[in-house]
Amino acid sequence: MEMGVVVQKYGGTSVGSVERIQNVAERIQKTLNEGHQCVVVVSAMGKQTDELISLAKQISPHPPAREMDMLLTTGEQITIALLTMALQAKGIKARSFTGWQAGVNTNSIHGKASVTHVESVRLQQSLSNGEVAVVAGFQGVSIDGEITTLGRGGSDTTAVTLAAALQADYCEINTDVSGVFTADPRVVAQATKMDEISFEEMLELARLGAGVLHPRSVECALMHRVPLVVRSSFVDEPGTWLKEASQMEQTLSARGVAHDSDVARVKILGLPNQPESLPHVFSLLADEHINVDMIVQSEHDQDLIDVAFSLEESDGENAKRLLKSLQSKLAIKKVLYEDELAKVSVVGVGMMTRPGVAAKMFTTLSQAGIRIKMVSTSEIKISCLIDRAQTKEAVQLLHTAFELDAKQPASV
Amino acid sequence: MEMGVVVQKYGGTSVGSVERIQNVAERIQKTLNEGHQCVVVVSAMGKQTDELISLAKQISPHPPAREMDMLLTTGEQITIALLTMALQAKGIKARSFTGWQAGVNTNSIHGKASVTHVESVRLQQSLSNGEVAVVAGFQGVSIDGEITTLGRGGSDTTAVTLAAALQADYCEINTDVSGVFTADPRVVAQATKMDEISFEEMLELARLGAGVLHPRSVECALMHRVPLVVRSSFVDEPGTWLKEASQMEQTLSARGVAHDSDVARVKILGLPNQPESLPHVFSLLADEHINVDMIVQSEHDQDLIDVAFSLEESDGENAKRLLKSLQSKLAIKKVLYEDELAKVSVVGVGMMTRPGVAAKMFTTLSQAGIRIKMVSTSEIKISCLIDRAQTKEAVQLLHTAFELDAKQPASV
Repeated sequence: MEMGVVVQKYGGTSVGSVERIQNVAERIQKTLNEGHQCVVVVSAMGKQTDELISLAKQISPHPPAREMDMLLTTGEQITIALLTMALQAKGIKARSFTGWQAGVNTNSIHGKASVTHVESVRLQQSLSNGEVAVVAGFQGVSIDGEITTLGRGGSDTTAVTLAAALQADYCEINTDVSGVFTADPRVVAQATKMDEISFEEMLELARLGAGVLHPRSVECALMHRVPLVVRSSFVDEPGTWLKEASQMEQTLSARGVAHDSDVARVKILGLPNQPESLPHVFSLLADEHINVDMIVQSEHDQDLIDVAFSLEESDGENAKRLLKSLQSKLAIKKVLYEDELAKVSVVGVGMMTRPGVAAKMFTTLSQAGIRIKMVSTSEIKISCLIDRAQTKEAVQLLHTAFELDAKQPASV
Repeated sequence: MEMGVVVQKYGGTSVGSVERIQNVAERIQKTLNEGHQCVVVVSAMGKQTDELISLAKQISPHPPAREMDMLLTTGEQITIALLTMALQAKGIKARSFTGWQAGVNTNSIHGKASVTHVESVRLQQSLSNGEVAVVAGFQGVSIDGEITTLGRGGSDTTAVTLAAALQADYCEINTDVSGVFTADPRVVAQATKMDEISFEEMLELARLGAGVLHPRSVECALMHRVPLVVRSSFVDEPGTWLKEASQMEQTLSARGVAHDSDVARVKILGLPNQPESLPHVFSLLADEHINVDMIVQSEHDQDLIDVAFSLEESDGENAKRLLKSLQSKLAIKKVLYEDELAKVSVVGVGMMTRPGVAAKMFTTLSQAGIRIKMVSTSEIKISCLIDRAQTKEAVQLLHTAFELDAKQPASV
């Protein structure tokens, strides 16, 4: 049997207790028995990161990013030590590695560093010695020897990056759901687990709040052509494979329905139609790290334009304050704000080139009396902004309309 | 004013809560205001190390030393991040350093590594930038890039080692007592705090269980001629300075009375008088990490010898088991074990060269009906093994007999 490398990632819930860490050790043993070499990437245990953040906030309302990285990286360091002990207790050779020991080199942007390159010598030595290499996710080291973190979804990124560097057979993301579904199974009882999905579709689903994988890790896997599978940490099921679209059967219709409930909308009415107006507004928002999602611009008359954009509701107050400060300076007529919104999206590679997809979506929603407040489209999805109260109904109707319903309810 | 470097160490109790960490930040500010540059060495917060050990024990009865080091070093890393945040929140420039970042290089003996050398470039840069350098105590890095710990008293050793490497003006050990006393103030109300003590005396007191400083850190300070002061973390008092004996006023009598209550004794009766017998016994004990303290050997007749030694009572069961296993092999007549013992010691440089010191000690004890079970002496101390129940009485009587009593009760 060929001894290929497999990189497995286990998130915070999967290693949230001593018992769960021991379960993960069992899983690793199974993978070894199948004849693989194993690199395992883990996150901090359960609520540990939250507890550390709370300690920091007691000391400083705005703790410096460098010291937050110093603080938070202890979380994964605890997990790698405990998991390695659990493996050794089962008679499995294993060795733990912090980010810097694993050669995860990043730039110097504390709190959201990017991996620049991986020096995998130590990991390769460990594998050659027949050890399981247990690596702290989410963390790296800058060229100045500073400890950095990769930001949200960082452990997934660590796993995919190491898989690329080690030319692993595949990278396995173990999480608390058993794969990627055609819709959130808590909302749509008929949702089905997909056996495979293209990177591009997953990227849209991830961005649209499917919550299974962070977009950065999907981008990274796509870039390095790392085969990726999303599986359950708790149930031994096949999961969902991420593949290049070209390697998949041609998708003839929609692949899934995603939704995101944390959405608000800002409308700027009567903005002077000058070249610097729009850049000014959106630069200001970007400087404050407010992520703008859908943007719709319409010309009011020759002198004035209207702009509307959606954003996370948690950024709403901040955005309102910023735009208020701009209002007189840019001679804006009116700023309107609306929250309690949601975004529903239909996703599928090639879907948009088929006629009638948008029409079917709009018809389905409007027949149910669901008002569409904004629309945006990409190569592989259509998104509509609607009232949050109607989210569940919309997702269920679209799931049925695009013929995604399973014959039997899904098991999560 | 000259800008000399001061190394301050704060132990686990001193940084046991957010509030205490903030108090330490105040103390550091005071030191900066006095015109010093500051390197601060800290331990893990309060009971954190115990909690991590308990987690490990749930996973493995004998967790591997390398992974214990990986686990436990997170404790100090949390403290350095929080203390640095507290300093920055007060407007003080500060930067935290793990052991490897601070250049604390050690050998590869996990769990009780020794510092081989310090590469202080990063610390010196930090000081040049006007920062307080906050360093994780107790930890270092081996030549293979492995994270190591220095064992018990390791943070004191880190502080003294850094003080030596940085040619600090002095090293300050902040602890939960206000200095070194002529006896344990909980036992002797008339105990007084010493303004100064010689390294050699301190070394004996440390070994004899005075508990203020770990012997290794005192040895290290003595070796590198680092001026050392032991002070209270909580009260702003001068503390006790450790100096070379040659720089001190000549001590004419005893300097202090120490005691250690965790003592047991083993007597081996009728050991064949052969060259390999004694080495065999004590090598076996050493292999099991049993520290033997006082040793008395007497010749029984030409063929047989008796050996008695004292040890920590917690090692007693283990020692008995080992000797039982040897008994028939070495043809030992009898092994006796006695616990509930204590050691009381009178310490003072030059004391032993003065006649009558030993006589005064024996007389004082025997007049009070306290039986002396064993005696050992060094250049600067005499120790007697007695019944544990009589410890307090013995220490008080010796303190008075050697004219150490204060006019007024001491403040701890």
